[in-house]
This record gives sequence, structure tokens and C-alpha cells, in this order.
Amino acid sequence: MSDTPSASSSPPASRAAGRHRVVVVGGGFGGLEAISRLKGADVDITLIDRRNHHLFQPLLYQVATASLATSEIAWPIRYLLRDRPEASTLLATVIGVDTQAREVLLEDGGRVPYDSLVLATGARHAYFGHDDWMPYAPGLKTLEDATMIRRRILLAFERAERETDPRRQAALLTFVVIGGGPTGVELAGTIAEMARVTLPPDFRRIDTRRARVLLIEGGQRLLSAFDPSLSDYARQALEKLGVEVVLGQTVSECSAQGVVYGDTRLEADTVLWGAGVRASPAAEWLGAPADRAGRLLVEPDLTVPGYPEIYAVGDTVSIAGPDGAPVPGIAPAAKQQGRYVGAAIKARLRGAPPPAPFRYKHSGNLATIGKRKAVIDFGRIKLRGPLAWWIWGIAHIYFLIGMRNRLSVALSWLWIHTRGQRSARLITQGK
Amino acid sequence: MSDTPSASSSPPASRAAGRHRVVVVGGGFGGLEAISRLKGADVDITLIDRRNHHLFQPLLYQVATASLATSEIAWPIRYLLRDRPEASTLLATVIGVDTQAREVLLEDGGRVPYDSLVLATGARHAYFGHDDWMPYAPGLKTLEDATMIRRRILLAFERAERETDPRRQAALLTFVVIGGGPTGVELAGTIAEMARVTLPPDFRRIDTRRARVLLIEGGQRLLSAFDPSLSDYARQALEKLGVEVVLGQTVSECSAQGVVYGDTRLEADTVLWGAGVRASPAAEWLGAPADRAGRLLVEPDLTVPGYPEIYAVGDTVSIAGPDGAPVPGIAPAAKQQGRYVGAAIKARLRGAPPPAPFRYKHSGNLATIGKRKAVIDFGRIKLRGPLAWWIWGIAHIYFLIGMRNRLSVALSWLWIHTRGQRSARLITQGK
Repeated sequence: MSDTPSASSSPPASRAAGRHRVVVVGGGFGGLEAISRLKGADVDITLIDRRNHHLFQPLLYQVATASLATSEIAWPIRYLLRDRPEASTLLATVIGVDTQAREVLLEDGGRVPYDSLVLATGARHAYFGHDDWMPYAPGLKTLEDATMIRRRILLAFERAERETDPRRQAALLTFVVIGGGPTGVELAGTIAEMARVTLPPDFRRIDTRRARVLLIEGGQRLLSAFDPSLSDYARQALEKLGVEVVLGQTVSECSAQGVVYGDTRLEADTVLWGAGVRASPAAEWLGAPADRAGRLLVEPDLTVPGYPEIYAVGDTVSIAGPDGAPVPGIAPAAKQQGRYVGAAIKARLRGAPPPAPFRYKHSGNLATIGKRKAVIDFGRIKLRGPLAWWIWGIAHIYFLIGMRNRLSVALSWLWIHTRGQRSARLITQGK
Repeated sequence: MSDTPSASSSPPASRAAGRHRVVVVGGGFGGLEAISRLKGADVDITLIDRRNHHLFQPLLYQVATASLATSEIAWPIRYLLRDRPEASTLLATVIGVDTQAREVLLEDGGRVPYDSLVLATGARHAYFGHDDWMPYAPGLKTLEDATMIRRRILLAFERAERETDPRRQAALLTFVVIGGGPTGVELAGTIAEMARVTLPPDFRRIDTRRARVLLIEGGQRLLSAFDPSLSDYARQALEKLGVEVVLGQTVSECSAQGVVYGDTRLEADTVLWGAGVRASPAAEWLGAPADRAGRLLVEPDLTVPGYPEIYAVGDTVSIAGPDGAPVPGIAPAAKQQGRYVGAAIKARLRGAPPPAPFRYKHSGNLATIGKRKAVIDFGRIKLRGPLAWWIWGIAHIYFLIGMRNRLSVALSWLWIHTRGQRSARLITQGK
């Protein structure tokens, strides 16, 4: 409280003069791994994020479907960095980078100087030029998205219970998920299971088992990143849960009334978006080349062309993997890139030669279907069904940060599986 | 979906014609106990609440101070009534009662007919004619209140970390709790402990241990419902935690700048209200006599004067206990009244003589001070310190509904106690 410098762009008080300053923008998987890998280096680190928490995004759909509480999959970033006295956390929104002065620009007018900059700013939903669909078809990226989707799903059943017009009631009991990737498959499967297993005994007038859940995918199969045999299995497993899988059809209209796909106009109160993402505006901040989804086209060492001191990792980056295909936007890829960048900065500080180009190691694709099945594509090994689900569950509990959350999530899942109950079925107000 | 009647006031579809209709407004402790006691009676029950969840209010301050997740202390009302096919749940806001037609009026125009009505609508904050203070000094009654207060507390520390003006920084690190009842004592103690134990290692520029926490009480002692010796102990224990306890002073001003009490003007960004409650407008709905706090003055059998078919229980009622003192607005009192009313309705249906007047049995007062101390006033037995805390904790875990939540809360507390960590330190947006 007493050691406050006067300039608003002041570096953290703990910084020794002259130390190399690393600024990391974004406290997701990539940013945190970079900081983790920098342990022991003689640097000052500032992590800037506009949220105070790191989010375990692979389980976000479980908050949206009332299986987990928000605090089971999110942690204060400060807490994660508490044992790193050289690292400061800044809750602030970045609006640009002054590459000349080497400063990150904050929305509140602050400027944070850097010697090395790591952009790990992730991605947002993309509506392919239909941003007006956003209010009707929310996507799932933040805790607020998840609690808002949870509220919409639960309120739809509540309103259906009171609705006397059969047509309105049918629209309330129609749930449309757009996009057949892992998020879409997981949302559709879990909603169908809620309607068929969790909710029926709670309602008196409606039979929630008659709710319609549609999963609409523009391509010819679900889970296009997986082996086709697993795509087929996923479709069959979803259909067994009662999901209507629509393939090869794109949605041409989204409104308060519902959706239009192909020649079909469907009245639906709840429409969820899992179809596309767009990178955060990091490329715009730098005026650097990007692909159509806004992802920075980086050098093989993950630096931004023309700026050897600026690295970019995770969903905000477009780079080819060893097989020539783009590195997927999943947590393991972001972590590998974060680790690489942390090591690269360390090497540069030591004066060591630059490391070999980044090489992505694909460990596999996973997706769950309802509460007892999953598909896993490890390349040579392909798994599906309950065994795959167990591997998925154990892997996700293992990767959760903090023993408390591992226990708590394991307990929540055990509860859902033995009792068929979901503990987080809360409708809370606000956005 | 097919059995939808046409009138919007339609009773639940499961109702057999001619059955006695009990409508309960409010799914808190009192309303749920009344329904529980009605088990086996030949009645149709409709529970109306404007929220979808029952809230374990005695632990709400722990959500506000980031110790517990929202779903650990709240349950969907539908879920609690799932094994009672004769009971329907209605998510709706009540705006009045047509006592002539015997119908409850809903905000959306619906009307719900009753033969017996139970009003269990609780209480809200009261600002003693200063409703303009509400935005600056939020009270703690709902889950939304709790997450909003949690956000305010956590953001104050975040902003202090970035603030360079020492005076603004001091205001950000000043927390004022108004009202020295159990809620005020619990909030002040927990905030002080957060600042002194949980947060220090997470911040780099501010020393969170230097945060000021003030507890302002208009009376001459804290916890006025407790024995004076326990009030003294609570004050000393709070002061040991670093809380500044101000007695015999009332707050005369609340604004965005802070508070004025006595001759002192204090700049504070975070002000919390635990000073007063006002009953829900049930008395206004009926045009029935009420006390100054808006509580219905009921007959000894908890019916509303002039309406033998309308009962009222819990915080919305004013009634004297056996010692002549008013029955306190605490969970055990609401539950006893709920049980009494359930039994009374059952007796009336059987044609049995009316039960003896309601008689409140006071089991005791409890309040915690920080994470290891508590005061308990059982009348003859008075306990304080760590032993009292253990009894408090075991009692509260015991009363939590649902085995899953008991385990989960026990786990959260164990984590806080062994690691000094709070798992729910999330700043989420929205109201």
C-alpha cells in the first residue's frame, strides 16, 4: 500500500531493475504453461487476463448442463501463481499492442512494457457473418455462457410445464444444437439424457422424455476430426439417447422463433451454437497476417513474422502440424505451444541457439456421448463405449488442477451416475 | 404435452376432481416443512416460488465469501418434491390473493385456486426509509446477492492491486459491514480472515493484511439475541481477527464514497448490509394487520385473522413465543411453524378438533466467527470457541438436504481448514 509508484503503467513493485520482462496475455492453458516452463528463469512475468480465473474449458459443457458447479472447473489465476513471486497477475482488458514502444495497451489507459510478449488470447464464437444470431444461439466459451445456457435449458422445461398452447409447448421442448464437433455432441447428448433420465420424475404436466433434441451438422459426419468409424458410432449412440442427428444441412436462419435448415423451419426456444470459432483480435493488434478465422500465421518458432520478441500460442494461432494438417484448437496443443515458448524465451536469455521449430505431437481426440459412453481416437488405437468413457473421465480428473477439485468433480460424477441426479440445476438471474 | 387444459389458471393435470387443494407460496424452510408434514393426506399441493431452488440461507454468507459454491447450498425445488406425485411446483411470481374467489394471483395473469393457503414468503432487506442506500450496501438474501457480494469483495482487492493513488487504494481496502447480528458477525469475520490468511500470498503490490474490516452496530453489543457473555466473546474474537467493532453508532449516510456513522466519515468501496429485514408483502396482499416490519399478525393457530383457511409461517409472520418475546426469524422457527400448519390442515381434513395453539420451542442461537470459532446459546448451556465451531459445523452439515451436498460441503470446509484456501473465488459478470 505504501510502495505505489506514480505512473499508471508502472511495473510490479517486486521487479528488480533491468530484469527481462515477460508479459503473457491470457490465462488459459497456453499462457499458464508458458509461465510454468519459465520457472527458475531470471525474469519478471506479468499475466494479464480480463477474467480473474483460469477455466478448464473441456468440462464447460457440464456446467451448461447442470452437472458441475462453476467453481469445480475454474480457479483464480492469482492462486495458481501464488508460489511464483516473480509473476504478477493483472485483471485488465487488453485493447492493443504498441510494438514500437513494446507496450501492451489496456482499456483503462494503462500501458504494460514488455521485453518478450506471449499472446495466448484464445478464440470466441464465430457466426460466419451472422452476428445477429448471437442472442438466439449462444455459444459456450465462458462461465457466464455456461450459466446462461443452463438457465435457458432449465427455464424452457419450467415454461413448458406451465404452457397451455400445445404448439408453444412443443417449441419450448425443442432443443437445437448447431455444429457436430465435440462440444455439439456433448451438449446434445447431455441435454437428451437430462430430458430422459434426470427430469421426468420432477414434472407433473409435461413428459420431459418427449422433448426433441436436434444436432445439426453441415458436414457429412459428426466429429470430423475423428476416424469415420467413431463418427458413425457417435451418431448411433446419440440416436439411441433420443437425439435427432441431421447431417449435411446448414442453418440458414436463427431467430427468436427457432431455426431454418434446408427446407425445414423448426420452432425452438433453445438454440445453442457449437459451429465455429474466431480467434481473438491479436492479429489486429499487431497488424499481422492471419487466416480467415483471424488466427495469426506464425513462424515455425511461434513468433509473429517481423517480431522475434512476440510469441503466440493456442487458439489464436494457425500453424501446420507435422502431417501438414493444421494443429487443432484443443487444450493439449495450446499446452505444448506454451511449453515451447517458455523454453524458447529461457534459451534466448541464456544466449543459447534458438530451439528447433515447434513440432506438435497429437495425443488424441476425445468426446463423450451422454453419461456412460465416449469415443477416443488415439490414431492407431480407437476406443468407444463405456471403457472409453472411463478413460475420458480419469484423464479429465487427472488434468484438473488442485486435489480439491479432482475429489469434488469425482464426487459430482459419482452422484450423477449412481443417482441419475444433477446437483447444479440452479436458475440464477442476471446475464 | 397432450393433456393441457385450456384455462391458464388450470390446476395440475394430476389432480383428481374434488380433492382439497393446498397452495403453498414460498419454497423456504417453512413452506417445505408444511408440505413434508402433509405427506399421506388426501390433498393436491401446489408450491409456487419465483425461484427454482430452495436455499439453505444459514450458509449463504459462505457463498458470499467464496467458501462454498452456489450449488452446495441450493437445490431445485422440483427435485425435493420428486417423490410426491400429489405436489406440483410452479415457477412464478405471486402478486396478490383474491380471498373472495380463493385464488392466488400471478404476475403473468395466471390464477391458482386454493382451499387452504400457506404463505411462507420470507423477508427482504429493509433500509429503514433509506432505499437509496441499496445499490451501495447490498444485503444477503439470495444466491444472486451472494455472488454479487463475492464479486464486489474480490474486485476490491483486484482494483487495489492496480491503484496508484494511496487514498483510493485505502478506500478499496476498507470493508464495512452494517449490523451486528449473526450475518454481520459472520461476514465481517470471514472477510477479515480472507484478507489475513487466504489472500496475502496471491498479491504482489498490496499487503491484503492491511485491509480494514469494520462492523458497525447501533446497539450496545453484538448478537443481541445471545447471552451478553457470548456477545463480549464474539467482539473479542472478531477483534483478534482484525475486525474493528463499532458499537452504539448508527450509519447516517451510505453512498458510492462510503459511509458516515456518528461524526466519522469513512471512505469505503465495499459496504454490506446486515442490519434489517422487512417481511414480504403477504400482509399487503391480504389487507391484513401487520407489525412495523410488515409481518402478518396471526392467530395462535397461525391463521390470518378473518381467514381460517389462510396460514402464514416463517419470516413473514409476527407471533409471540411462550416467554412473550417474539419468535425469532430463524430457520428452526420457520420449520416448526411449517410442521404445525401441515398438521393443522391434516387435522381439519379429518374433521379432528383444531390443534392446540402453536408453541415455539427455542433450541438455541448459533453464529460463527471466522473459520475456527463460534458462539452457541442453548439457554442453559452456552458454548464458545473451537468446540462451539465443531458443533455448529456438524449441525449445519446434518441439516443440509441430500447426502451429496453434505459430503461436498464437508470437503470444502476441510479444504479451507487444512489449506487455508477458498475454492469459489470466482468473479463472474452480470448482476
